[in-house]
Amino acid sequence: MPQPQPDAVADAVAGLNFDAAGLVPAVVQDDADGTVLMVAWMDAEAVRRTLTTGRTWFWSRSRRAYWRKGDTSGHTQHVRSVAADCDGDTLLVRVEQVGPACHLGTRSCFEAPLPAVRGSAPGGSGGLEPSPRTPRSEPAGEGAR
Amino acid sequence: MPQPQPDAVADAVAGLNFDAAGLVPAVVQDDADGTVLMVAWMDAEAVRRTLTTGRTWFWSRSRRAYWRKGDTSGHTQHVRSVAADCDGDTLLVRVEQVGPACHLGTRSCFEAPLPAVRGSAPGGSGGLEPSPRTPRSEPAGEGAR
Repeated sequence: MPQPQPDAVADAVAGLNFDAAGLVPAVVQDDADGTVLMVAWMDAEAVRRTLTTGRTWFWSRSRRAYWRKGDTSGHTQHVRSVAADCDGDTLLVRVEQVGPACHLGTRSCFEAPLPAVRGSAPGGSGGLEPSPRTPRSEPAGEGAR
Repeated sequence: MPQPQPDAVADAVAGLNFDAAGLVPAVVQDDADGTVLMVAWMDAEAVRRTLTTGRTWFWSRSRRAYWRKGDTSGHTQHVRSVAADCDGDTLLVRVEQVGPACHLGTRSCFEAPLPAVRGSAPGGSGGLEPSPRTPRSEPAGEGAR
């Protein structure tokens, strides 16, 4: 498979904003149907491995070790794309997921619904109406306000 | 709008596993088309407000203040569902998004592609094949292996 240039990978990793523990959360999404499968953590080395091997690598905070998704379960993730958010402190990894993503056997880890009021935008038109206010510039360091 | 029972909300919040700073990451996903819009942070109070008001509330780590999405930008998020992951340490909030989610004016905050090798599952069948190995139980504290 084609490899990205090592310098491009190093630059991409260097451009991320890791937290005080040297980590960023990575949201893993099914590339085929958009299901959010799981969230796990990557340090710079796990990002580098994910970008260069076609498989997802994470850092386990509890075990303090790298893990490659599927090595224990067989339920591998094959990278389709990786994107950083506007603050560079979170990754979105789109994958081809083999089998269930969750160790509980479910497709996604997000299977515990919480009781929530359901909101609706004014007019209830499904969010397609224009914003009621003119967006203005936001303070630095806030990706979404 | 119907309100969830206060005890149910308190129980749901009490069941979450907040980090050392008292926070969980919240992945916000467009309920209509599955786009992952942003990731932000919630403490217990922000979760409680999100569950009970129909709007998304977050805790700003940089400003050390609560913020309700859209109060600055007008680009509000109306809650459709909230789920915790299997470890209870991450939330998935599905919303009706009004306008762009990102302060840069893009629909999603995840607009910065990183150079990545594209992986493929053996056989290339799009992840529909059964797992090549029998899943076995996983160590506690790891949601997805």
